[in-house]
Amino acid sequence: MLDDRIETDLIGSLTIPGNVLYGVHTRRAEQNFDVSGLRLKDFPELIQSMAMVKKAAALANRDLGLLPPEKAQAIAEACDDLIELKRIDENFPVDMMQGGAGTSTNMNVNEVVTNLALIKLGANVGDYSKLHPNDDVNLSQSTNDVYPTAIRLTILRACDGLVAAQVTLSDAFRAKAFQYRSALKVGRTQLQDAVPMTVGQEFEAFSELINEDIVQLRSASKLLKEANLGGSAIGTAINVPSGFSGRVCSHLSHISGFQLIPACNLIEATSDAGGFVSFSGVLKRIAVKLTKICNDLRLLSSGPLSGFGEMRLPAVQAGSSIMPGKVNPVIPEMMNQIGFQVIGNDLTVTLAASAGQLQLNAMEPVIVLNILQSMRMLTRGMQIFKQRCIDGIEVDLDRCKALLDQSLVLATPLAKLIGYSKAAYLSKKALSEKRNFRQVVEEEGVLTASQVDQIFGDIVEFANISQSAAG
Amino acid sequence: MLDDRIETDLIGSLTIPGNVLYGVHTRRAEQNFDVSGLRLKDFPELIQSMAMVKKAAALANRDLGLLPPEKAQAIAEACDDLIELKRIDENFPVDMMQGGAGTSTNMNVNEVVTNLALIKLGANVGDYSKLHPNDDVNLSQSTNDVYPTAIRLTILRACDGLVAAQVTLSDAFRAKAFQYRSALKVGRTQLQDAVPMTVGQEFEAFSELINEDIVQLRSASKLLKEANLGGSAIGTAINVPSGFSGRVCSHLSHISGFQLIPACNLIEATSDAGGFVSFSGVLKRIAVKLTKICNDLRLLSSGPLSGFGEMRLPAVQAGSSIMPGKVNPVIPEMMNQIGFQVIGNDLTVTLAASAGQLQLNAMEPVIVLNILQSMRMLTRGMQIFKQRCIDGIEVDLDRCKALLDQSLVLATPLAKLIGYSKAAYLSKKALSEKRNFRQVVEEEGVLTASQVDQIFGDIVEFANISQSAAG
Amino acid sequence: MLDDRIETDLIGSLTIPGNVLYGVHTRRAEQNFDVSGLRLKDFPELIQSMAMVKKAAALANRDLGLLPPEKAQAIAEACDDLIELKRIDENFPVDMMQGGAGTSTNMNVNEVVTNLALIKLGANVGDYSKLHPNDDVNLSQSTNDVYPTAIRLTILRACDGLVAAQVTLSDAFRAKAFQYRSALKVGRTQLQDAVPMTVGQEFEAFSELINEDIVQLRSASKLLKEANLGGSAIGTAINVPSGFSGRVCSHLSHISGFQLIPACNLIEATSDAGGFVSFSGVLKRIAVKLTKICNDLRLLSSGPLSGFGEMRLPAVQAGSSIMPGKVNPVIPEMMNQIGFQVIGNDLTVTLAASAGQLQLNAMEPVIVLNILQSMRMLTRGMQIFKQRCIDGIEVDLDRCKALLDQSLVLATPLAKLIGYSKAAYLSKKALSEKRNFRQVVEEEGVLTASQVDQIFGDIVEFANISQSAAG
Amino acid sequence: MLDDRIETDLIGSLTIPGNVLYGVHTRRAEQNFDVSGLRLKDFPELIQSMAMVKKAAALANRDLGLLPPEKAQAIAEACDDLIELKRIDENFPVDMMQGGAGTSTNMNVNEVVTNLALIKLGANVGDYSKLHPNDDVNLSQSTNDVYPTAIRLTILRACDGLVAAQVTLSDAFRAKAFQYRSALKVGRTQLQDAVPMTVGQEFEAFSELINEDIVQLRSASKLLKEANLGGSAIGTAINVPSGFSGRVCSHLSHISGFQLIPACNLIEATSDAGGFVSFSGVLKRIAVKLTKICNDLRLLSSGPLSGFGEMRLPAVQAGSSIMPGKVNPVIPEMMNQIGFQVIGNDLTVTLAASAGQLQLNAMEPVIVLNILQSMRMLTRGMQIFKQRCIDGIEVDLDRCKALLDQSLVLATPLAKLIGYSKAAYLSKKALSEKRNFRQVVEEEGVLTASQVDQIFGDIVEFANISQSAAG
Repeated sequence: MLDDRIETDLIGSLTIPGNVLYGVHTRRAEQNFDVSGLRLKDFPELIQSMAMVKKAAALANRDLGLLPPEKAQAIAEACDDLIELKRIDENFPVDMMQGGAGTSTNMNVNEVVTNLALIKLGANVGDYSKLHPNDDVNLSQSTNDVYPTAIRLTILRACDGLVAAQVTLSDAFRAKAFQYRSALKVGRTQLQDAVPMTVGQEFEAFSELINEDIVQLRSASKLLKEANLGGSAIGTAINVPSGFSGRVCSHLSHISGFQLIPACNLIEATSDAGGFVSFSGVLKRIAVKLTKICNDLRLLSSGPLSGFGEMRLPAVQAGSSIMPGKVNPVIPEMMNQIGFQVIGNDLTVTLAASAGQLQLNAMEPVIVLNILQSMRMLTRGMQIFKQRCIDGIEVDLDRCKALLDQSLVLATPLAKLIGYSKAAYLSKKALSEKRNFRQVVEEEGVLTASQVDQIFGDIVEFANISQSAAG
Repeated sequence: MLDDRIETDLIGSLTIPGNVLYGVHTRRAEQNFDVSGLRLKDFPELIQSMAMVKKAAALANRDLGLLPPEKAQAIAEACDDLIELKRIDENFPVDMMQGGAGTSTNMNVNEVVTNLALIKLGANVGDYSKLHPNDDVNLSQSTNDVYPTAIRLTILRACDGLVAAQVTLSDAFRAKAFQYRSALKVGRTQLQDAVPMTVGQEFEAFSELINEDIVQLRSASKLLKEANLGGSAIGTAINVPSGFSGRVCSHLSHISGFQLIPACNLIEATSDAGGFVSFSGVLKRIAVKLTKICNDLRLLSSGPLSGFGEMRLPAVQAGSSIMPGKVNPVIPEMMNQIGFQVIGNDLTVTLAASAGQLQLNAMEPVIVLNILQSMRMLTRGMQIFKQRCIDGIEVDLDRCKALLDQSLVLATPLAKLIGYSKAAYLSKKALSEKRNFRQVVEEEGVLTASQVDQIFGDIVEFANISQSAAG
Repeated sequence: MLDDRIETDLIGSLTIPGNVLYGVHTRRAEQNFDVSGLRLKDFPELIQSMAMVKKAAALANRDLGLLPPEKAQAIAEACDDLIELKRIDENFPVDMMQGGAGTSTNMNVNEVVTNLALIKLGANVGDYSKLHPNDDVNLSQSTNDVYPTAIRLTILRACDGLVAAQVTLSDAFRAKAFQYRSALKVGRTQLQDAVPMTVGQEFEAFSELINEDIVQLRSASKLLKEANLGGSAIGTAINVPSGFSGRVCSHLSHISGFQLIPACNLIEATSDAGGFVSFSGVLKRIAVKLTKICNDLRLLSSGPLSGFGEMRLPAVQAGSSIMPGKVNPVIPEMMNQIGFQVIGNDLTVTLAASAGQLQLNAMEPVIVLNILQSMRMLTRGMQIFKQRCIDGIEVDLDRCKALLDQSLVLATPLAKLIGYSKAAYLSKKALSEKRNFRQVVEEEGVLTASQVDQIFGDIVEFANISQSAAG
Repeated sequence: MLDDRIETDLIGSLTIPGNVLYGVHTRRAEQNFDVSGLRLKDFPELIQSMAMVKKAAALANRDLGLLPPEKAQAIAEACDDLIELKRIDENFPVDMMQGGAGTSTNMNVNEVVTNLALIKLGANVGDYSKLHPNDDVNLSQSTNDVYPTAIRLTILRACDGLVAAQVTLSDAFRAKAFQYRSALKVGRTQLQDAVPMTVGQEFEAFSELINEDIVQLRSASKLLKEANLGGSAIGTAINVPSGFSGRVCSHLSHISGFQLIPACNLIEATSDAGGFVSFSGVLKRIAVKLTKICNDLRLLSSGPLSGFGEMRLPAVQAGSSIMPGKVNPVIPEMMNQIGFQVIGNDLTVTLAASAGQLQLNAMEPVIVLNILQSMRMLTRGMQIFKQRCIDGIEVDLDRCKALLDQSLVLATPLAKLIGYSKAAYLSKKALSEKRNFRQVVEEEGVLTASQVDQIFGDIVEFANISQSAAG
């Protein structure tokens, strides 16, 4: 166990526990912002991105002769430790909900990287005369360009996992669509029986809903590849050495695997949160779609006996302590709630983005917190949704057929054959007499059973042609 | 037709059409803020309240000897004209979506009142040497105390109509509850069959939902009775004669019929929009409840054959041009959309309320626009909802009974008699064999038909006891 | 004056005034949905788009031999009348806030087009045996494909005007940027003096903010070119003749000037409101940016003497009735309120989009209402903002220079020359002695006046190089 | 270390680690809902409330002879352990973001209480033949009445801490108001210099803003005292023994110290989330007020030299790594972000509350998560805001006086003495000549220095009279 050490800043001195690698700035921030219980360490993906930026900056500074190779090397190795998620838990205590436009996040990383590097250099933790958090690790940088860049990189990296979850979920719906491609059912508008369709078409539409979101997500993530790194405090590149901007972007692209490009107007890019608004807007869009899908699944599986009853969701836990045999749609309910959270989080992002003032938006910490939380819940949620719900759905084909025959959905294709008014007359008759519509049609000699089968068969055939054309 | 006249302000001169009673300030505002298509004249209830305030101020100024009786009398009569909705259409062209913290609304009213009063005094329209919009009609006032007071008064007045619509709607649900007090049905949680209840209990719960909102609305409206009249520009009462504040509140209470009281901290009251946030929050709450009720009604009336089908909403228009006999729940759908609008409007109010700065909130015009629109839509919507939907609801008692018997809702009360595990066994058996649960229970000799009737009868009896106790 | 006529539907008969061209379906809808005061006639751009769709359908039906050429011709001419905005005011009374998923809008247009066409055919208004609203004008269509298509087309058409307003506004900021390209000022982060920049850079950033929105808007509008026309009730193309879908899209593209394409999954497209969510999200993004810009302008023009005072906005109306000489930033305040409204409207759109169920989203009427209102306010607002505010901005160069010299912004570039600690020492000294920092620097012999001028000159030069590179 | 055990439910068997006290239901829920990283154990206040309810139920069941005294005693002691926060960390792994309407939370508590009680009874963990999670610990209860009751109780308990933080913060502002009760400053509307006021009045208004929120919070919390305990699954009290409802409420009031009352309509109360909407609405209102206050503080402390500069916030950490001497308003910035989060969370609550269906609202888990998070952040945030910001504010009296003299705020009181037009003339003259207004007034011989002092003195005196009257 190392001894505690004293560190000093402009405000005064503080004791830092011997076992931690952060310094005085982190300590102050920890005390200033202890509000949400959500700390940097709970979002290691952000720490990783910060470390990537720090490493890229060290290499760029080395290239330009601003940092001796051995210092740059030690910093780079320290950053690698963080990228490999070493030493995270005890060293990143700062609250995500922090004032100061991310300065405390930046300083927390600067301090930990410095001390990790000092160890690698054989120096003592805290001996900033050998390597300095500001003068060396933060060299040529400002929180105002480093932090937004790291946020963007974090979102980009998390985006891959989100897209993977979307693809898997969409595929699961498509598999269900294929499985039930020949099953007819009642199509409904405004919750009223409308016209026939296949069960496959209904699942296929869910799949397509998700596919379109993937396109939107990829498009919005492109906006995030524009980084303001090299812009320094307000985008005027003050105190940034010539050539730094290009080199640091190039190193960062190499380290992260994402092709980052410098924003064309660094001043605008420094204060603008438009890219986050757009990205969060796509998350909201995903939430809207999932809400719709889950509402539909809960409706279609309602019952088991007094509802729509067209499908059974897999039972993943007992539904009730007092109602024997009750099974509830708990996974879609979880997804619905995730949707509500994501929509609320999007509002928080919108508010924070609107609060930019002059040359900076100081509210970025709450933006990144909300976007990362939304992404995490959507990604994990969709994985579970796929595995514990969609894959196990069983459609009750008998029920679908019974509803189809008894309902009036035959009336619309019938109208084309026998005229609207005759079809309407039969509908009214069946409804008032509470009789099965197909039966009425056949018994009244309007159509034979095989003619009805033909109509329904055509619908299935048409559905399958469209489906394979689109698929 | 009167000749056009030239009016002049600090910025320059403008031609005012001879047939209108407003002046140069209104004309400038009309040109500055032509954005929403929603004008003061479309909200005559706000003009009325402004006129009430102006009349009260004229009388208070007269009482204090600041305004000659004949001027005060002419102003008061001019205000009465506006209160009686005379001359509104051509004279209030300013957009509701206006900058300037309501100054343009205040000046529009000041100018029209002045010219109406000039006519009554036998003077020429526009001869402000005889009576002046600022020096006389606006005497002892500032937009910053007059405008918020008029907003509050307008909301209070509109509140009566809203409450009346709520009461009528709640009563309509209660009447339905009484009508169907003895009909049993399936109670559902998480869209799954749960335990038995009466149709009356379901309607009674809708009635109660609305009743609770009435209490909340009345409570929130009380906050609006605190007016900052007499506070002048920032609540320090600068240039307001001693004694004015008490007198103007007293006159205004008399004129309006609402007991207004001066805010205890006029400075805080001048910049604070908290009362509006709270009031709009209650409108949002009403929207949330109506959303829930309309969703339920659309669900319960879904079908007619492939859905829940427990009730029929009255057909108020043809549902489809191509689907014979389709009838849609158009009135609840309208109400749902009103709900979405009210919730969106509440966000607008929240944002505007957050944007107050230092001694004023300049964003009050968008606040009042949104609150009045929400109130209007809720009031009219609930009236229509009651008349064209609720009153005509017919419950399908046969369907309710059939669902009750076939579903598993009997299992829970059964568990109490025969134990949870035996009940669960029977549930499983009935479900897997797709048999009517009541039949299974009777055929297996678990209970006789009359014992089942007894269980159900007890539930009805208990429901009716509770209902009359609460009603 | 024509005599009143009686029209009949499934529900019964109604008297229709002789002077109007709508029929029984419109009349019922007018009575069912009288809630918002906002009627179809207030959104003639939507009626135009509906007429374009109706014309395209008539021509496609004619091409396929389903409609006799003379009927198709009469319908097309009737649609042209509406496209030219003839007969709008008295014939489109239905509330925009309507249930029924747009059926009433569709029927209102069907009825008016029919009666206009009947007149052209020399027949009597209301003689639907000659031409029928459903059988002829609505032939091969369903509200569920016609209405969403018309909404999309309306937004696309309105988008051009919105983009034009954005371009003009961005150009106005750019002109200001050029005008003040050599004026130095204090750059600020977190409302605290930070580092120097040019006034030109600040304006240029506003211009860039808007330019990026234009790109986003165009991208989101592309999603709206996918129409579900030809999908009929639920996207299965039931009762739609083969070949109709391609032809009607082709005619509509020709009539409207927008290249519409059929959605690849018509079922998904019928119920999905994702395109509207994305588009409204961009409107929200625009609102967020304008909010930021207006907040900045109000801040920079605060004072005139006790605030930032760096610029004067043009006086467009008197600011106060009781404070002599007060001028307020009323145009930015109007824009701020438009921003709040647009953000609120976006929430309404989100809620409505989430409420789609199974094969349809019945809540589209409130979606289109909110999007069109937002677009209207943004378009008109930006035009006024440009003309009545931005064009007339005057920067107080003396004030900018005085603040620059007295503030500590010189410290950062100084630190590069004389080291961080020496610069910090001088900062502290100047601040505590309340002395002009530039003076301190010169008097202490740290830098000569010409050296300071050189530093500032370099910043201006660098700014102008960047600006012309980006411009 | 105990051996692992096997537990079984309707779905199958699972291995439960020997060291934990939960059972199969908890284990399934843990796997089903691993999405947010926020677990029950992170909200021990909710577990405490659940334990209070369980204890109350055990005692009521004992009173009614349904549970043997020794079982009831063991359950009660087990609940006490949880109330004292023993054994929380390892035993409550279920995600807060859970489907199933809280069933998993209820079962998690039932299982842990059972096993704790089994230990106290000298039995083996997992030996549910001795004491059963459902049959004994959950006796006479349903998740649907237990869970909402525990949520309400949790909020009520947390409310006390929130109110305490509000009171302390309000008092801190009031102390500042007293400290600066005689200092004059410029009052501003629409960010433009308006009329004079005291610094004390400005602080007093902040204090009053908060005080009004306290009243609202207390009022909204009253709604939460209505519990639906005893209503069972849907509020019909099915399977609940007569007399239970009254006894359990009485025990719970005694245990918790809050006077809970049974809701008058238990069915409505079971599905209604209106009380949560109202309560969250007050949290939003608090956020709106804090947003306004923090914006004002950041504005008034802007500078230090190129802004308003009227006050200095205490420096709690270094502001920048590259700008020497920069200090930022990090605590108000943190509060602003908390405000954005609370407003976003309120939207989530609204959405979830709207999603109630028929006899239940299954979305309560996301409601309680958001309300508790908002309360936690507001409570901790206000404590820090008070200690690390408000207490240390120093007003720059020289700056306030200088701005006062140079600005035009004297013009309005002057207008009362010398007329509006003469005052306006002097204003214009001073502004165009960029001269100090007070100087102009004195040099032009309009007023003597002592007369000006008299005007200002009167304002201070009036302010102090009002302040002590209100205080």
